[in-house]
Amino acid sequence: MKYLHTMVRVSDLDESLDFFLDKLGFVLVRRTDYEKGRFTLAFVAPPGDEAYTLELTWNWDPEKLSGGRNFGHVAYGVEDIYAYCQQLMDKGVTINRPPRDGRMAFIKTPDGISIELLQLGDALPVAEPWASMPNIGSW
Amino acid sequence: MKYLHTMVRVSDLDESLDFFLDKLGFVLVRRTDYEKGRFTLAFVAPPGDEAYTLELTWNWDPEKLSGGRNFGHVAYGVEDIYAYCQQLMDKGVTINRPPRDGRMAFIKTPDGISIELLQLGDALPVAEPWASMPNIGSW
Repeated sequence: MKYLHTMVRVSDLDESLDFFLDKLGFVLVRRTDYEKGRFTLAFVAPPGDEAYTLELTWNWDPEKLSGGRNFGHVAYGVEDIYAYCQQLMDKGVTINRPPRDGRMAFIKTPDGISIELLQLGDALPVAEPWASMPNIGSW
Repeated sequence: MKYLHTMVRVSDLDESLDFFLDKLGFVLVRRTDYEKGRFTLAFVAPPGDEAYTLELTWNWDPEKLSGGRNFGHVAYGVEDIYAYCQQLMDKGVTINRPPRDGRMAFIKTPDGISIELLQLGDALPVAEPWASMPNIGSW
């Protein structure tokens, strides 16, 4: 038995592809438009780990996508959590939970799905400006 | 960069461990109880693919865990989708979307998280009783 993927719905595929590809640096592994069913599936993955995709489902008929408490987050490991968060901030992404501990940060997709970022290996040394950075909103 | 895990919250850890370990046949990779924070993290994974865990977060203070539309499902591949679904049914698990096509089924966790089951490799030949089995509820 084998883990395959996690699926989240997106309300605006262009906005979500901008978020995952341009801001997070993910790669688009596959995209299929289903004319008859009026939906598109786009599989995105972190660079270097393309076997484990996040499936983005975009239903063409508009729908408000609210969140629920039974789902938590999807987690990715990064090589340098400070450099990665700085890159996100430079692109206008809010760091809801900054990596004050050199180890863990949280951001949110345009549809409010929480994404956990974890430093691979040992935590980085605690450092400014991260150590003093406040939380923003929820995650 | 690397995919690490998906986290879902559970309202009753014993019920969820029964679901994942006894009914789905997953393995418990790690469990940690956090007395001070009053929560438990349990990482479960499909047998044979223990690197890719599902993190179950159980907050000790009771909370109603409703679902939202922005999250879709977590998907696992199985060797024989008919045998796997039969095993689930024998243990009392509702197959919300039976594998009528020999390829895909959906079930739900006790807290309403959808789980997609996909036949690894080619679809199995369409066969009864699966082909005539109706959907039950949503997924």
